Amino acid sequence: MSQRVPVELSKAYRLMNHGPTVIVTSHHGGRSNIMSAAWAMPLDFDPPKVAVVIDKSTFTRGLVEASGEFVLNIPSRALARLTVDVGNESGAQVDKFAAHGIAVAPGAIVQAPLVEGCLGWLECRLIREPHIQQAYDLFLGEVVAAWADPAVFDGAHWTMDEGGKRSIHYVAGGQFFEIGAPFHARDDKS
Amino acid sequence: MSQRVPVELSKAYRLMNHGPTVIVTSHHGGRSNIMSAAWAMPLDFDPPKVAVVIDKSTFTRGLVEASGEFVLNIPSRALARLTVDVGNESGAQVDKFAAHGIAVAPGAIVQAPLVEGCLGWLECRLIREPHIQQAYDLFLGEVVAAWADPAVFDGAHWTMDEGGKRSIHYVAGGQFFEIGAPFHARDDKS
Repeated sequence: MSQRVPVELSKAYRLMNHGPTVIVTSHHGGRSNIMSAAWAMPLDFDPPKVAVVIDKSTFTRGLVEASGEFVLNIPSRALARLTVDVGNESGAQVDKFAAHGIAVAPGAIVQAPLVEGCLGWLECRLIREPHIQQAYDLFLGEVVAAWADPAVFDGAHWTMDEGGKRSIHYVAGGQFFEIGAPFHARDDKS
Repeated sequence: MSQRVPVELSKAYRLMNHGPTVIVTSHHGGRSNIMSAAWAMPLDFDPPKVAVVIDKSTFTRGLVEASGEFVLNIPSRALARLTVDVGNESGAQVDKFAAHGIAVAPGAIVQAPLVEGCLGWLECRLIREPHIQQAYDLFLGEVVAAWADPAVFDGAHWTMDEGGKRSIHYVAGGQFFEIGAPFHARDDKS
């Protein structure tokens, strides 16, 4: 089981500000699904909003449109292979949770599940913008609850370090970068 | 001077897929400007599109709306302090290029300049979507030319490694992560 502590909503953008790849979970009508998304970002601070690209071909899309909810889960490297696998399979063909033995926990507000072992979780309510959903596969959400693993996020700041769990940043073809060393701009010479 | 080689448009998304913080440059009516943006992501593969958040308070926003163009520059750690500084100042008050001695080069297609010393550059034409620009400060663009420093991107793949130039990923308050080690998901145990 992941440890999970609440993140103040005004600080929730920090979970995604550095550009991690996310796992999108969704639930509607008794079916849950899980997919990966490298194209996700914060959109506002407070109330926090996010943007994520969800392709028309995905089973997730129907669940998100029908339920008006989704969760963005921030995986660590231990979930890298799963992140690739759930991006290559469709929930229309397979129950990916069962196929991969994915452990989940309930969210506080939305019905979509939280994936165990992640670094952070953003429960989101869809902000319906049908034109950009249709034209660009672009989905906006308001973050209504946020959580983090206290081993890597202390409530307002990442504490990821070398040797510990860190976020992963997808490139293409199964290739990722792990996030590296933290630094402060003032400590570098300009 | 940065080395700069063209990136095939169908591969341009890879420059941003891992979530780097970007520098947005713009130009209209004899004025150029430069700001930073942590909230930027790819939106499509081919033709490549991007999304970026440009706040109403920024001078950049007027230049982008008037010209219909912008450039997303991907800075390395050597530009971290500049990235913070140009995010804290407004082009309405100061010519940030002059104030910081920022070296630029012309783009191939758009009028906004390319910032020297970056890892990659995406020249973009604004896709006008007035509702989401107004409601969410969200700007979409089609990438019409892309470039990379061949020391870190070989035409289709990042070759950033430890000790070399790497992308930076902003969190808050002057704090960044540098991108870390590359890995392939199949090489990790699942």
